[in-house]
Amino acid sequence: MLLHHASWPEVEAYLERSKAVVIPVGSTEQHGPNGLIGTDAICPEVIAKRASELTNMLIAPTFNVGMAQHHMGFSGSMTLRPSTMIAAIFDWASSLARHGFDRLYFFNGHGGNIATLQSAFSEIHADRSLGRPGANREGLQCKLVNWWDFRPVLDFCRETYGSAHGSHATPSEVAITYAAFPHAVKETAMEPAIAPSGRFTDAEDYRAKFPDGRIGSDPSLARIEDGKKLIELSATAMARDFEAFAKQQ
Amino acid sequence: MLLHHASWPEVEAYLERSKAVVIPVGSTEQHGPNGLIGTDAICPEVIAKRASELTNMLIAPTFNVGMAQHHMGFSGSMTLRPSTMIAAIFDWASSLARHGFDRLYFFNGHGGNIATLQSAFSEIHADRSLGRPGANREGLQCKLVNWWDFRPVLDFCRETYGSAHGSHATPSEVAITYAAFPHAVKETAMEPAIAPSGRFTDAEDYRAKFPDGRIGSDPSLARIEDGKKLIELSATAMARDFEAFAKQQ
Amino acid sequence: MLLHHASWPEVEAYLERSKAVVIPVGSTEQHGPNGLIGTDAICPEVIAKRASELTNMLIAPTFNVGMAQHHMGFSGSMTLRPSTMIAAIFDWASSLARHGFDRLYFFNGHGGNIATLQSAFSEIHADRSLGRPGANREGLQCKLVNWWDFRPVLDFCRETYGSAHGSHATPSEVAITYAAFPHAVKETAMEPAIAPSGRFTDAEDYRAKFPDGRIGSDPSLARIEDGKKLIELSATAMARDFEAFAKQQ
Amino acid sequence: MLLHHASWPEVEAYLERSKAVVIPVGSTEQHGPNGLIGTDAICPEVIAKRASELTNMLIAPTFNVGMAQHHMGFSGSMTLRPSTMIAAIFDWASSLARHGFDRLYFFNGHGGNIATLQSAFSEIHADRSLGRPGANREGLQCKLVNWWDFRPVLDFCRETYGSAHGSHATPSEVAITYAAFPHAVKETAMEPAIAPSGRFTDAEDYRAKFPDGRIGSDPSLARIEDGKKLIELSATAMARDFEAFAKQQ
Amino acid sequence: MLLHHASWPEVEAYLERSKAVVIPVGSTEQHGPNGLIGTDAICPEVIAKRASELTNMLIAPTFNVGMAQHHMGFSGSMTLRPSTMIAAIFDWASSLARHGFDRLYFFNGHGGNIATLQSAFSEIHADRSLGRPGANREGLQCKLVNWWDFRPVLDFCRETYGSAHGSHATPSEVAITYAAFPHAVKETAMEPAIAPSGRFTDAEDYRAKFPDGRIGSDPSLARIEDGKKLIELSATAMARDFEAFAKQQ
Amino acid sequence: MLLHHASWPEVEAYLERSKAVVIPVGSTEQHGPNGLIGTDAICPEVIAKRASELTNMLIAPTFNVGMAQHHMGFSGSMTLRPSTMIAAIFDWASSLARHGFDRLYFFNGHGGNIATLQSAFSEIHADRSLGRPGANREGLQCKLVNWWDFRPVLDFCRETYGSAHGSHATPSEVAITYAAFPHAVKETAMEPAIAPSGRFTDAEDYRAKFPDGRIGSDPSLARIEDGKKLIELSATAMARDFEAFAKQQ
Repeated sequence: MLLHHASWPEVEAYLERSKAVVIPVGSTEQHGPNGLIGTDAICPEVIAKRASELTNMLIAPTFNVGMAQHHMGFSGSMTLRPSTMIAAIFDWASSLARHGFDRLYFFNGHGGNIATLQSAFSEIHADRSLGRPGANREGLQCKLVNWWDFRPVLDFCRETYGSAHGSHATPSEVAITYAAFPHAVKETAMEPAIAPSGRFTDAEDYRAKFPDGRIGSDPSLARIEDGKKLIELSATAMARDFEAFAKQQ
Repeated sequence: MLLHHASWPEVEAYLERSKAVVIPVGSTEQHGPNGLIGTDAICPEVIAKRASELTNMLIAPTFNVGMAQHHMGFSGSMTLRPSTMIAAIFDWASSLARHGFDRLYFFNGHGGNIATLQSAFSEIHADRSLGRPGANREGLQCKLVNWWDFRPVLDFCRETYGSAHGSHATPSEVAITYAAFPHAVKETAMEPAIAPSGRFTDAEDYRAKFPDGRIGSDPSLARIEDGKKLIELSATAMARDFEAFAKQQ
Repeated sequence: MLLHHASWPEVEAYLERSKAVVIPVGSTEQHGPNGLIGTDAICPEVIAKRASELTNMLIAPTFNVGMAQHHMGFSGSMTLRPSTMIAAIFDWASSLARHGFDRLYFFNGHGGNIATLQSAFSEIHADRSLGRPGANREGLQCKLVNWWDFRPVLDFCRETYGSAHGSHATPSEVAITYAAFPHAVKETAMEPAIAPSGRFTDAEDYRAKFPDGRIGSDPSLARIEDGKKLIELSATAMARDFEAFAKQQ
Repeated sequence: MLLHHASWPEVEAYLERSKAVVIPVGSTEQHGPNGLIGTDAICPEVIAKRASELTNMLIAPTFNVGMAQHHMGFSGSMTLRPSTMIAAIFDWASSLARHGFDRLYFFNGHGGNIATLQSAFSEIHADRSLGRPGANREGLQCKLVNWWDFRPVLDFCRETYGSAHGSHATPSEVAITYAAFPHAVKETAMEPAIAPSGRFTDAEDYRAKFPDGRIGSDPSLARIEDGKKLIELSATAMARDFEAFAKQQ
Repeated sequence: MLLHHASWPEVEAYLERSKAVVIPVGSTEQHGPNGLIGTDAICPEVIAKRASELTNMLIAPTFNVGMAQHHMGFSGSMTLRPSTMIAAIFDWASSLARHGFDRLYFFNGHGGNIATLQSAFSEIHADRSLGRPGANREGLQCKLVNWWDFRPVLDFCRETYGSAHGSHATPSEVAITYAAFPHAVKETAMEPAIAPSGRFTDAEDYRAKFPDGRIGSDPSLARIEDGKKLIELSATAMARDFEAFAKQQ
Repeated sequence: MLLHHASWPEVEAYLERSKAVVIPVGSTEQHGPNGLIGTDAICPEVIAKRASELTNMLIAPTFNVGMAQHHMGFSGSMTLRPSTMIAAIFDWASSLARHGFDRLYFFNGHGGNIATLQSAFSEIHADRSLGRPGANREGLQCKLVNWWDFRPVLDFCRETYGSAHGSHATPSEVAITYAAFPHAVKETAMEPAIAPSGRFTDAEDYRAKFPDGRIGSDPSLARIEDGKKLIELSATAMARDFEAFAKQQ
């Protein structure tokens, strides 16, 4: 069930059954010559939607602009400063906790969000930890899972793309967006076939090192059929993982 | 064109033609017994998408959780504090301005966002206004338009719903979401037919005064056909308004 | 009774009778060639003082520097960033609420403050709304009223100034300051007689469009007698409105 | 000249002659059984006004709610948190500096403001000090002076009140407010004649130690004539001090 | 060379040779029954000092209270909220960058700091990335290295402690502090020998799961000799890594 | 006892005996041609350590980077903005108060920290003062003492250095660091012997007025023997002062 497609009495009824909720977290940033700027928001969103057909699951709206300062050298990229993102995640979590949700499953599509999300979790917990011992507030669990974290997904990527997978604008994530939005498929020649790899600091540094935006990948390998497969693999694993989380003490 | 479905070279090409961009702004909050919690995000998003078929228009992702503190008494509602929302809008605008966008058209679906959005615009401008006179920074225009602000929309609502339109969980906004997502249509008897009206302060006060969430409305009047009409009316007017804004000095 | 001219036992005694208090909110910004920079603080302050002679009313000090970023192109204008103003209003309200005041009547003299004040109210309420349902905290009501909001005031302005009233550095507000401080009357020829109208963004944009600071007005029409009349009209209406607010549930 | 009673062209003309400006800083807090809650704002304001008759001097509006957390146990007291006050003073100073003022003379009436004001000055300077060396920004000087800092004032208080002067709700400050507002004179017996002295932490601690709000003082000694004398002594010294500051390199 | 034992001319001279500097980052938190509360600050500090004898290296003071909200259930633990730590690291980095340092090597002793440190780096870079392209500001590199990240260290721990190493209050870190401060060696029986393992959220949850503070470890195995060995292994590797970083483009 | 060299059970045992704790507060800033950049952190730290041998005393880690914006013109100086330092001190105090410490003795080594530390105390107290009267939270006392505040220390400095003592990079503070770290003694000719005196604003202003960093001092007079004496004098007085504070109601 999508939170934004539900009515409040339907959410109230869901809370009778479960206190767990999924929050897809994405980013709005360049994904190379043929990748969608919304890739990192689209992937966890479509996978979570598929997972919700497999098990009892409430899905919040997607946190769609994340921490992507390093991509700001490419037109269309958007970012929150980490301090802003921490404040926003704090408010999202406080809102959900107000209704009694105590298992927040953040399903993430962007590596660059990880540190800031974890800091946000600590900001939320610090507020409780600095309070008095024994204060009358329920426990709250926040879990961060990336859509590619599951073994079958990792195996598929390695077998299908090998050394052309890379770490940004990967064929796997592009394939998922193509599967979700076939009209958005873009044909572009990659030059070189596999992009350079390496570390980066700010936006100017990133653009100087990775002139077309890709890191270590050849996203021209992205195929709709593989995207469908990836959605299925990740959704199946994620549904199980969420079930366990919802029950966890 | 949707920013999140475009590649960065496509956005770069768009910037050759125009420096204007639409940012739909919504909210995630209860909309009465039969309304979707995502109503205020869905309305500007679907109307903007339709408008983008009528004219050259780039649409950013939807700012989907807004300022809805007064709805927190109903399960599923989410809110940012105004100070958090100002920081986030500041970062969204700064990101877009970094690429050269200088006409930001915020297309809003939630009355409760208006004051905070205007404050955010002032926060953005204050940063420039407190700088030295003549500093070498381009002008930036932010415009706030609600989807219901256009004369043909207002006329349609008055004619179709009369005194049953109300001000929250209105039949017009519910109709638009039903047109966009027919599977999400919910049948619920309203009791009383038309909800009470009045002012409110915080979440407890709101729930005490408006026990099922509606204010002054009878959203059981929402019909898919009317929703389609409303989308068309608003999109047509908005496309024209955006064109004028994009050209405005 | 002025809070700042009272002793604390006098305020304690007032709280036995009423939990309502007036907070005049102004701005320190240019008001055209013959207007006082303090106009927007002076108007609500003198009107509230007069109103306090008509009914039981406690008046807090005036919040005298508001949100006026767009006026920073003119010497002497001062502004808070919206985020600063929200924090300050939050602290003013928290201070008054600490003593048991639960009806805060913000009596405003500057259109540019409205959005930020409303955001500040939401910041205050959000803090309560995100708390647990049923938490043991009293309700708090914040009301925003502009001194010109009353029907007799609007009528007087229309009849007296017609199309020369405009929207910034209006003859009505200048007249009130002249009535309050006759020694501060300034004679200046206006060129053109009626200033241009339009929208604006930041300080440089404002000054380019409105070179002498006025918008749509001819403040050379300001007369002490009219100022006295306006004070009386607004104070009478405001006293009644405050009485109703103080009793309101 | 009062900034708030001037027009912007008058301020522009003043800036031709001087870049120095006075900002009175006060507080809104209990001042014992017969003292005005606005005492600390009234004192620097009336003294500065008198000083402006003695020399060329521009006076900004009074910063009227300061840092008075320790007085919150007494009805009517208001406070900013130090962090809020720093942000607000930062914005006031940035506004004035924007117009070219580079000598900001903060004329203070409340001991409890001193640390926060000095921190605010450091916040302003830190912003410049962390910038690049040689950056093209003018120097800015902030000076903090309390109205009682001058030798003749100190002598008068010692001679007139001796050990009954104390440190809060002193007869000297009460006398000044009585001289400024004779209608606000309050007759109250003090019990004991001289209030206890000592240190304090938060509001509850303060009220427990100083049950009527005074510290070490007998403000029943306040006389209008002495208040007039104090205003004259402080204003004369302050005018000279300001002149020197305005010229200082 | 220790920055805090150097004079400013000595730092100026160092800057002629190198723009790289080490910032040890620790934490002040419980480390089980026999571990020092300062363990995580002591380890990177003593290792860095040893490394500075092996190569040209400037070492800043240790950032000694980090992000340790989960340890607040144990007396003596201290924490910054992540948002505070980000602001502080931002200021430390801005200070060093002001002098021309452009290679900041953060040498960390606490796993709980990692996410917040990385967020702080992004906060620093975001400030640059949101600026104009081509703005005249030098690149800045921040590198995060944990003292245990080096292969020889990991091998030693595995070989020496095997499954008794665990993840908090490990025998390796305790051994290093014992080597550094032999007088602080504490003898305590561990019960059970190896502490439980698992995940945790806030302070109450942590204390409930790990009643004596350890996670998965048996720190009674800590020996001074092993601590000396670990310091040597880590310092040697770190000196080399720092040299490479200092030269890196 | 050093908090960072203690285990948590040892701190728990200390809390049975005392709720008082020392927090040394320093700065990392230039101290003239022969002074250590860490002088202001080293002095209170070594004095407190010596004092802890004289009485029952727990010493927290040293807050080692303080408010030193005015020293940023000299290589190696580091600073927090006042707003950052207030947030950090707030978190340090909140952490210690969480465990039951209610007497926080801030032992300071840098005059430039005083205003910001006092503001931080007010920030901590304001949080309590704005809460409801009678709220169930224990009192918290924060005391600020500078290591040179004691009569025997002041006498020694006056007798030993006379007019060559000055106010920054003084021979007394340099002597203490030399006594603590004899290997760090630096021989430098001072030119002129006694540095100029005066006021300053930001970093550029400071460096222009005090080109080698000293203010009014001749630190070439610093002798190890005198440093030892100063440590003893200050530690003896401080131990007594702390004892009294720990018992104070």
